[in-house]
Amino acid sequence: MAESVERLQQRVQELERELAQERNRRVPGSGEGGGGRVRIDKMSSEVVDSNPYSRLMALKRMGIVSDYEKIRTFAVAIVGVGGVGSVTAEMLTRCGIGKLLLFDYDKVELANMNRLFFQPHQAGLSKVQAAEHTLRNINPDVLFEVHNYNITTVENFQHFMDRISNGGLEEGKPVDLVLSCVDNFEARMTINTACNELGQTWMESGVSENAVSGHIQLIIPGESACFACAPPLVVAANIDEKTLKREGVCAASLPTTMGVVAGILVQNVLKFLLNFGTVSFYLGYNAMQDFFPTMSMKPNPQCDDRNCRKQQEEYKKKVAALPKQEVMQEEEEIIHEDNEWGIELVSEVSEEELKNSSGPVPDLPEGITVAYTIPKKQEDSVTEVTVEDSGESLEDLMAKMKNM
Amino acid sequence: MAESVERLQQRVQELERELAQERNRRVPGSGEGGGGRVRIDKMSSEVVDSNPYSRLMALKRMGIVSDYEKIRTFAVAIVGVGGVGSVTAEMLTRCGIGKLLLFDYDKVELANMNRLFFQPHQAGLSKVQAAEHTLRNINPDVLFEVHNYNITTVENFQHFMDRISNGGLEEGKPVDLVLSCVDNFEARMTINTACNELGQTWMESGVSENAVSGHIQLIIPGESACFACAPPLVVAANIDEKTLKREGVCAASLPTTMGVVAGILVQNVLKFLLNFGTVSFYLGYNAMQDFFPTMSMKPNPQCDDRNCRKQQEEYKKKVAALPKQEVMQEEEEIIHEDNEWGIELVSEVSEEELKNSSGPVPDLPEGITVAYTIPKKQEDSVTEVTVEDSGESLEDLMAKMKNM
Repeated sequence: MAESVERLQQRVQELERELAQERNRRVPGSGEGGGGRVRIDKMSSEVVDSNPYSRLMALKRMGIVSDYEKIRTFAVAIVGVGGVGSVTAEMLTRCGIGKLLLFDYDKVELANMNRLFFQPHQAGLSKVQAAEHTLRNINPDVLFEVHNYNITTVENFQHFMDRISNGGLEEGKPVDLVLSCVDNFEARMTINTACNELGQTWMESGVSENAVSGHIQLIIPGESACFACAPPLVVAANIDEKTLKREGVCAASLPTTMGVVAGILVQNVLKFLLNFGTVSFYLGYNAMQDFFPTMSMKPNPQCDDRNCRKQQEEYKKKVAALPKQEVMQEEEEIIHEDNEWGIELVSEVSEEELKNSSGPVPDLPEGITVAYTIPKKQEDSVTEVTVEDSGESLEDLMAKMKNM
Repeated sequence: MAESVERLQQRVQELERELAQERNRRVPGSGEGGGGRVRIDKMSSEVVDSNPYSRLMALKRMGIVSDYEKIRTFAVAIVGVGGVGSVTAEMLTRCGIGKLLLFDYDKVELANMNRLFFQPHQAGLSKVQAAEHTLRNINPDVLFEVHNYNITTVENFQHFMDRISNGGLEEGKPVDLVLSCVDNFEARMTINTACNELGQTWMESGVSENAVSGHIQLIIPGESACFACAPPLVVAANIDEKTLKREGVCAASLPTTMGVVAGILVQNVLKFLLNFGTVSFYLGYNAMQDFFPTMSMKPNPQCDDRNCRKQQEEYKKKVAALPKQEVMQEEEEIIHEDNEWGIELVSEVSEEELKNSSGPVPDLPEGITVAYTIPKKQEDSVTEVTVEDSGESLEDLMAKMKNM
């Protein structure tokens, strides 16, 4: 068995080399559709039709971004290359991000054609492979690393953790940001587990199953609520929750909602990485009412995830070590964030409704409700769960954790 | 371990397929466009991977839209196929709209590659031609009619008016909606002139030159303010206006802002055509602060455009002819629209600032300012301007109108 693995690894290396050679052999201006563009060593501000970066570099002249070229130094991992993830990847590619790591295990289907990005002729290809091909063609300056697997199995989880820790622009350095563009609870919890353990900042995104609401969320381990700290939130769309979640029923989706969510997600990424504007901790989108609530949540000191609690301790120490003025500024900023525009919202969530969901429930602005009800704990003791050497799938572990 | 072997085997297969594709690509005649899908006569709700409409038809089961198939009966004209217009066209195409009419006179350039949709190999092609090719490939069920010309010349304006009046799904019937996705004042005024004359409902969209704010606006001639009724609005981004508008300076743009504006535009189109949710009269997007103001504006009885004034008279008659209860309902609805979420906004626009711009200035919520200052009139008399047989370009007429 060991030999077989070694041989296969050798074959993968061989094929990767061949593929790289084949791609290099392609003469610019030939190949698919007359073949893309040549690589560009340095981003230029020159205003000519042939410069793909002129409109981005203009952000400096407009006083929005002080150092746009810095975008090339960042590596971003995107988990889930579906309706939101594919558009997210395309936006970052067109912005000239340094490196993208894509994770997905799905295939392109005609049933995906109601969302942007994939095209009918790609049906049957793996999503990461099809995406890499299109994106490389759009911007050959971006480095791509794609993984066609499910991150929630134990083995893949280890590999995923390894790539988050070492897959940065310079091999051995961590990525700068992880973006969750997945469509299920388990995958989100897996990303949450990994990022809490690594202290890795990430952003979560989601679209409701009725296709008319979505959200993005920034999670800085120890500083803001993690995915396990509180039930994930959705923007209520004045629709009976029972019609939303039915097992085995095909979810609805719209290219509009997916496009808006990808847009506000990547905008938040750009603001975070390039240091401009206000980075949102939570931004919701209710398409029925054109309502966009913002808020921020503190982490839960009793969070189920021991690494989240550990990160909270470390964050507290970090804040305590800061000079007093900086701490005050930070707190002021958070208040500012919460109520940037002096918007007054009257909560319509009843006390009873809040009691029915377990765990700490934040004061929810009107129009936001919890997306999942987390099962009540049966005992109070907190058991530490580790994934190493357990031989169990993360799915099994997750099920255990839920029933604790 | 067993999983590891499986994954490696999968990766080998994947690489082999990629390599084969890469080699095939060098053969002339292969590559993009080699695929697509067959036409579909009737939208089906069947949940199978091969059904490109399953996730849209699910909107019915989710209780969002009562008759999704109706989308096939609508024709939409898009003026401007750039950063916003191209994505708008792609979204409507993927939603399965009946017919799209595209108007643009620009060519694809590498300098456009920082926005979604166009790809480097399309550089040099006309935008409408390149867009039609891609869109037809994505969804062959949609009818396309493209016009590679500038709508603001007198001759093209007449042809444009004719296609709006007769280019519906059934030839001889008007289109259902006109979408303005242009990037300049003159083209917007031209669309406004045409739609006021025809009583054609349209939606306007725009993105600021610093790339970090945008808006959409619904204009129902006679019912809501037209483009000439009041200075167009932009969402203030806390940036000195002087840095925004400089002649000959390359404007900045971002795929994120363009994607969000296209997304909220097409969402509004879907809500308008398929009758669900609240259709917004004005929705702004301030990317720096993640602020999305909404408002509505009544038309100006002293509007410069005589056709706007005519439409206002007709609308008044229509409302007067309604039974009393319906009128009240309508007014209630508008109030509801204005302050859907009980959001209280304190205006920061000073009285002096308002006086400095001519014409009726609506009560602007915080964060919204006027985009252009319309020159003050030199005389009070309103001269009626017609474009027929004048031999002048619309540009000349517009200049005259401005100085009236």
